[in-house]
Amino acid sequence: MTIELTPIGYVDNKSTSVPRHCSVSKVEGRLVVDPQYQEGLRDIQPGQQLVVLFHFDRSPPFTPDRLVQKPPHVKKKLGVFSICSPIRPNPLGLSVLEVLEVRGNVILVKGLDMLDGTPILDLKPFVPPSPDMP
Amino acid sequence: MTIELTPIGYVDNKSTSVPRHCSVSKVEGRLVVDPQYQEGLRDIQPGQQLVVLFHFDRSPPFTPDRLVQKPPHVKKKLGVFSICSPIRPNPLGLSVLEVLEVRGNVILVKGLDMLDGTPILDLKPFVPPSPDMP
Repeated sequence: MTIELTPIGYVDNKSTSVPRHCSVSKVEGRLVVDPQYQEGLRDIQPGQQLVVLFHFDRSPPFTPDRLVQKPPHVKKKLGVFSICSPIRPNPLGLSVLEVLEVRGNVILVKGLDMLDGTPILDLKPFVPPSPDMP
Repeated sequence: MTIELTPIGYVDNKSTSVPRHCSVSKVEGRLVVDPQYQEGLRDIQPGQQLVVLFHFDRSPPFTPDRLVQKPPHVKKKLGVFSICSPIRPNPLGLSVLEVLEVRGNVILVKGLDMLDGTPILDLKPFVPPSPDMP
């Protein structure tokens, strides 16, 4: 069984390099959403945290030797599901960005860790995990 | 352009109904991962928060009248990208669950809000947003 997705937009980010993770990024840029979905951007507010699901479109295909990988900032190899590597069974990325402004079908954001042109698959509000969690 | 994904496993959850969101769920269950990916589960620890990306496989197709929707627990209509509705342009779901135990290719979790048999697309560590964020 396969699941087919179509991007809803793309990242417009003139930086030639981006930090390794959104939690350590101050890079600003734009999420350009297909105008057919513009009405769905209603209620996204400046200052809020926005979850962006995206496609690691420039990653090599996943192979079994990538089930464990050494991240650049860690000394040992870790299981692929414990790291945010772009080389994973399904090349899905997740970033939590700060919304600076919404202008029509464009969202200005801060915290980018995606490459210019990255296809965006979904946007969601950030809901903090249950306070009962460890 | 379309992106093709293949599930890496599925949710095994005998409950016939689930809470509306993982942040209000205490439901326990199992994430059953395809044995070919078992080595990638290494380093997932009991007590940690795990991000699960999944396919809303029982949602009706998205149509433009769903760009704004009234969530069951909110009085007004909101843009689809400001809510967690399963009816969205790409039917991707995101939950943050508590890991109870890892047994081979099975992860016991708490906080489930997915239906029994839901296809799992990816697992990631939960990384809190930057402390500078609002």
